[in-house]
Amino acid sequence: MSGSTFGRQFCITTWGESHGAAIGAVIDGCPAGLTLDASDIQHFLDRRKPGQNQFTTKRQESDQVQILSGVFEGKTTGTPISLIVQNQDQRSRDYGNIASVYRPGHADYTYTQKYGFRDYRGGGRSSGRETIGRVAGGAVASKILSCMGIQVTAYTRSIGDIVVPDDAICYNCINENPLYMPNNEYASRAASYLEECMKSQDSAGGIVECIVTGMPAGIGETVFEKLDANLAKAVMSIGAVKGVEIGDGFSAASSKGSLNNDSFISDGTSVSKETNHAGGILGGMSDASPIIIRAAFKPTPSISQVQKTVDMSGENIELSIHGRHDPVIVPRAVVVVEAMTAITIVDMLFANMAARLDRIIDFYCK
Amino acid sequence: MSGSTFGRQFCITTWGESHGAAIGAVIDGCPAGLTLDASDIQHFLDRRKPGQNQFTTKRQESDQVQILSGVFEGKTTGTPISLIVQNQDQRSRDYGNIASVYRPGHADYTYTQKYGFRDYRGGGRSSGRETIGRVAGGAVASKILSCMGIQVTAYTRSIGDIVVPDDAICYNCINENPLYMPNNEYASRAASYLEECMKSQDSAGGIVECIVTGMPAGIGETVFEKLDANLAKAVMSIGAVKGVEIGDGFSAASSKGSLNNDSFISDGTSVSKETNHAGGILGGMSDASPIIIRAAFKPTPSISQVQKTVDMSGENIELSIHGRHDPVIVPRAVVVVEAMTAITIVDMLFANMAARLDRIIDFYCK
Amino acid sequence: MSGSTFGRQFCITTWGESHGAAIGAVIDGCPAGLTLDASDIQHFLDRRKPGQNQFTTKRQESDQVQILSGVFEGKTTGTPISLIVQNQDQRSRDYGNIASVYRPGHADYTYTQKYGFRDYRGGGRSSGRETIGRVAGGAVASKILSCMGIQVTAYTRSIGDIVVPDDAICYNCINENPLYMPNNEYASRAASYLEECMKSQDSAGGIVECIVTGMPAGIGETVFEKLDANLAKAVMSIGAVKGVEIGDGFSAASSKGSLNNDSFISDGTSVSKETNHAGGILGGMSDASPIIIRAAFKPTPSISQVQKTVDMSGENIELSIHGRHDPVIVPRAVVVVEAMTAITIVDMLFANMAARLDRIIDFYCK
Amino acid sequence: MSGSTFGRQFCITTWGESHGAAIGAVIDGCPAGLTLDASDIQHFLDRRKPGQNQFTTKRQESDQVQILSGVFEGKTTGTPISLIVQNQDQRSRDYGNIASVYRPGHADYTYTQKYGFRDYRGGGRSSGRETIGRVAGGAVASKILSCMGIQVTAYTRSIGDIVVPDDAICYNCINENPLYMPNNEYASRAASYLEECMKSQDSAGGIVECIVTGMPAGIGETVFEKLDANLAKAVMSIGAVKGVEIGDGFSAASSKGSLNNDSFISDGTSVSKETNHAGGILGGMSDASPIIIRAAFKPTPSISQVQKTVDMSGENIELSIHGRHDPVIVPRAVVVVEAMTAITIVDMLFANMAARLDRIIDFYCK
Repeated sequence: MSGSTFGRQFCITTWGESHGAAIGAVIDGCPAGLTLDASDIQHFLDRRKPGQNQFTTKRQESDQVQILSGVFEGKTTGTPISLIVQNQDQRSRDYGNIASVYRPGHADYTYTQKYGFRDYRGGGRSSGRETIGRVAGGAVASKILSCMGIQVTAYTRSIGDIVVPDDAICYNCINENPLYMPNNEYASRAASYLEECMKSQDSAGGIVECIVTGMPAGIGETVFEKLDANLAKAVMSIGAVKGVEIGDGFSAASSKGSLNNDSFISDGTSVSKETNHAGGILGGMSDASPIIIRAAFKPTPSISQVQKTVDMSGENIELSIHGRHDPVIVPRAVVVVEAMTAITIVDMLFANMAARLDRIIDFYCK
Repeated sequence: MSGSTFGRQFCITTWGESHGAAIGAVIDGCPAGLTLDASDIQHFLDRRKPGQNQFTTKRQESDQVQILSGVFEGKTTGTPISLIVQNQDQRSRDYGNIASVYRPGHADYTYTQKYGFRDYRGGGRSSGRETIGRVAGGAVASKILSCMGIQVTAYTRSIGDIVVPDDAICYNCINENPLYMPNNEYASRAASYLEECMKSQDSAGGIVECIVTGMPAGIGETVFEKLDANLAKAVMSIGAVKGVEIGDGFSAASSKGSLNNDSFISDGTSVSKETNHAGGILGGMSDASPIIIRAAFKPTPSISQVQKTVDMSGENIELSIHGRHDPVIVPRAVVVVEAMTAITIVDMLFANMAARLDRIIDFYCK
Repeated sequence: MSGSTFGRQFCITTWGESHGAAIGAVIDGCPAGLTLDASDIQHFLDRRKPGQNQFTTKRQESDQVQILSGVFEGKTTGTPISLIVQNQDQRSRDYGNIASVYRPGHADYTYTQKYGFRDYRGGGRSSGRETIGRVAGGAVASKILSCMGIQVTAYTRSIGDIVVPDDAICYNCINENPLYMPNNEYASRAASYLEECMKSQDSAGGIVECIVTGMPAGIGETVFEKLDANLAKAVMSIGAVKGVEIGDGFSAASSKGSLNNDSFISDGTSVSKETNHAGGILGGMSDASPIIIRAAFKPTPSISQVQKTVDMSGENIELSIHGRHDPVIVPRAVVVVEAMTAITIVDMLFANMAARLDRIIDFYCK
Repeated sequence: MSGSTFGRQFCITTWGESHGAAIGAVIDGCPAGLTLDASDIQHFLDRRKPGQNQFTTKRQESDQVQILSGVFEGKTTGTPISLIVQNQDQRSRDYGNIASVYRPGHADYTYTQKYGFRDYRGGGRSSGRETIGRVAGGAVASKILSCMGIQVTAYTRSIGDIVVPDDAICYNCINENPLYMPNNEYASRAASYLEECMKSQDSAGGIVECIVTGMPAGIGETVFEKLDANLAKAVMSIGAVKGVEIGDGFSAASSKGSLNNDSFISDGTSVSKETNHAGGILGGMSDASPIIIRAAFKPTPSISQVQKTVDMSGENIELSIHGRHDPVIVPRAVVVVEAMTAITIVDMLFANMAARLDRIIDFYCK
């Protein structure tokens, strides 16, 4: 069944395997009139590009995006925007041992069980390269949001056990270190932690946090299409994510009502909340406070340590994965979380436009 | 925009407010031939019924379900199953002060912002009574799953800071205590914790854990319709849930690849995993190990302590919420998490049936 | 798989069988703020009620609708509107011979093949009573449209070979005759035609035409979600419809470009078309001319003449269907076509709201 | 809102404009294990290629398709299949007069009203080239169907007033004449008719008929997702289609029940129908007789005769459209109708797999 389309009104359909001819996305439902060129998207893709520092794979992926449709004279036309990135670094190497083995922590076993066989080259469709389409879509979504004064910002909140505390977050620092952490000192500690991991042929995970500011209140539909429900799906669908939380998230479970409730307060003209334990979402709808979402990434499963596993003939074997793998994917995943958040929010902003009859009449009849 | 339907093939549409005439659900896409009567559903609804012990509201809600369609001579016909529960305990009380106030932690403010006004009686559509439809749908989904040897079991993993440790879990104890905890001693401690909360006019949150056993491998679609992504949406859409995790979840973020990877092992005839950090899902598809999902519930926002808030005229006021409220909703939410999990899994089992051409040909042409 | 929900933003889910406890619909995505009570819907349901004249079944179906949710203090709240109609005229008659036979022209055979068995009482889900839910949804959609100055009007264009010619259409006459024809003289002729049918134990078909006025231009999405494509689906989904056409429809196929093209003309302030062969839709979008849609209904399959058929044991038999059946369903189907058209147009009006960035920004940021 | 995706399980998303860089489609939900290469698709695309005879535009469009993803070692993998066709014949001509004018019968006016402006080069997204994606998807769907013994065959039933009568249809002749008519003599007459049209600077329409054989019974969902409803949408979504009918279609409206009902008959082992007025669909589900669908195409709107219209400044003007246009699009549309029919049927075959519990249990547990 189809699983490669996300969104109901602002929709992204992604396609492509790690070692196929190309990888891409079709964005459908982008409104007409958005100024857009390839550089808007390239800027986002460059943020997930590998080979930028010692902690990312040395693979050279230039990942140049081309817009094939949906833009005319520099503006979107309302029709589907087709984006393509050629796959360039496809070494004709020997996948022999990978092809016949179920790598621990990877999708080799499950894909084979589902489909009867799999494209084993570089993980095929389950490769991290699949996120290129997400990021391209997120670039367009972010540009739409910025026209409305909405800003989506993601960063690395933790790597391994190096966690940036609440009171040490410095948004201006995010782009000052290769790990996209909001504190350069913690970034140094995380770098040391990663060096230790690499020395021991191991890998690390971490947490990406994403903040959305400028949201109007009331965005999100009732019951099943809540804003937080859709954000959870959007972020959990990213490979390697094992947990999602909003606002205080899991720590709210051990809090008390008197501490966790955010008091409303009025300055005479507008209503706001004194605190933001809710993370900007109440009853599944935005409350105009910043939305806070957190995603837990597991450690990269490809490690060069010897691991026990099974081959496709059912033999128990030992496996050591060599090659160009990230010791941590979290820094490169920052922009992916940002992209999925932006896509979700655009989609729900559009859904909300039909919420009130008076506003619909105003839209069509004024 | 429509938000009251969940699922793509096995779909549930819920409707109804806390203080309307009735509340219900329509289940569409239930296969023909399932033996079903109201008692199958009633059994599930009774598990979420209030008034069963000291920690749930004293409201009397008999919540008797009636099947209005889709069943003929004791079997489902393949057409929509309409379920209805009359709302009985609708006191004609004075909602005056609630009507004009934004209760902290509730959806009053966001609903009003979205729709221009709200049904303020008992929370309207954002009331916990909305989950009646979910549980009814989950009862049907669970019955389908049990025909296939798949079992979904949820329980209270923690209340406040009382957490049942891994090695103390006793599945047989779940129904032996009113908190649905898998350990009677921890349940006693949690009961004491709740008594303290009630004394201090406060409320508690907690974590619900859900285990799915008997799953075939390969269930879940690629990229956006991953099994874990859909489970995350399903569970996050439940009111008061602020976080969702699969397997080791957030703790995986601070683990290492060598520890977090689950080795595959073969006994000569079948493949399994030595450990289950992944929580039964790899690459978004079931790996045939038990699926483990955890949901964090925030403390009940209705507390009788004085809280600061704002009324609809924009005045800062003080509010004390009296009435019949649960000091913790976690025990009653156990069956809701189970229901949403069961619905999601049925839906994805159906989606998977078209994954392989050979099996499709076998289905139609044998 | 689920088939009982129609629409993407303004959604209707219908449920219920001919002889179950009740029949109903859930309308999801209705905007908040619409003044609505049961009489708005009852007025539409009464138009499809049988027993109103000699050409409709003598069954007494009072079909009183009740609103169970989604309306508060006389206005829609934006949450699902649940509508229910109790089935009252359920004679406990002997369905023995119908139960074991495939009636020609009915869905008995195909339902049995699909589901393995069927609810044979009165056609079950394939009964004409299924349209109650559609009409209820259409009543709400029509009320929304009327707030925007859009009017949907359906009528009987032909019964058997009695066709009202273009130049004899009198919209004011539609409700002056029991056949809902836009010309009383042709209605008399059609009545005579039907009397002949009844005498010869036979039945008739006919054509329903529907006009939509007041449409803004540009409604309908590109490529697959065109306005005409969705109208075609909406109308073809009504039982007994075998053909759908827009504007000149099938006669356009034998026309020429010079005759079929509608010239645009300007009066200095606005653009219109000199003719309307296109039926108000160009490139799948409304062009602000009246939308014209036509649906061909086959003759009622239940006739009392002896027919050849097969029973469920595979024996060739002869069948004579007695009971209370309409000799023609077209007059009662008029309101059903109107309902499906209204639902489709509301849904596409909502979809169009996100078509242009400048209007979205205006919506959220003005 | 998104309109470029068709199907729920077997989904096709198309993109691209007439004069953009390329045009393409993403097929999602194609089952794994289908042997597929570009030539399977090219064969279908070649059937819609222009420049093949005197009645099609002289534009040279080689339209070579490339598969970018979803196929590994000659077989589909279950992941999205991305198809691309480069646009080659993009003359950098002067669109000046077309750019500022609303061509009668085209989508210029409606697109401009919807989106605020339009890509005027060759019709942009509303160009007939949009059907390349449909045909590519249809090629894959047809190949799946052929694995199951289901054959979809379309042909030109009429051009202008030249209609092939029922008793003159010769399926073997379809590919023997450039108009794809199932009778060579009628094809000659139609050719003469078209020559007359061209001489008088005019254009013609016609009817495409499509037959599906080998269908199992029971395919199609109840109520809104009926097989005929989805076929109607699929076919009406093709540009220039103004009417759709199933079986006897509009002529059923003037028939009688005794004539229109198809008697069931048994040969002792299987049940069939003596006639097929129903066109293979009863109650919205296939009845195992051949499915018959007919689509009415309007005459090509681009004609070189002088036409009255309006320009974008609101001036009434005269327009004469020169260039390379088909005097009739029907022959090239034959494969498009076939494609949309095939896609719809695959999608509904997949939907039907979850109709019966016993077959689901058999699928998963045998």
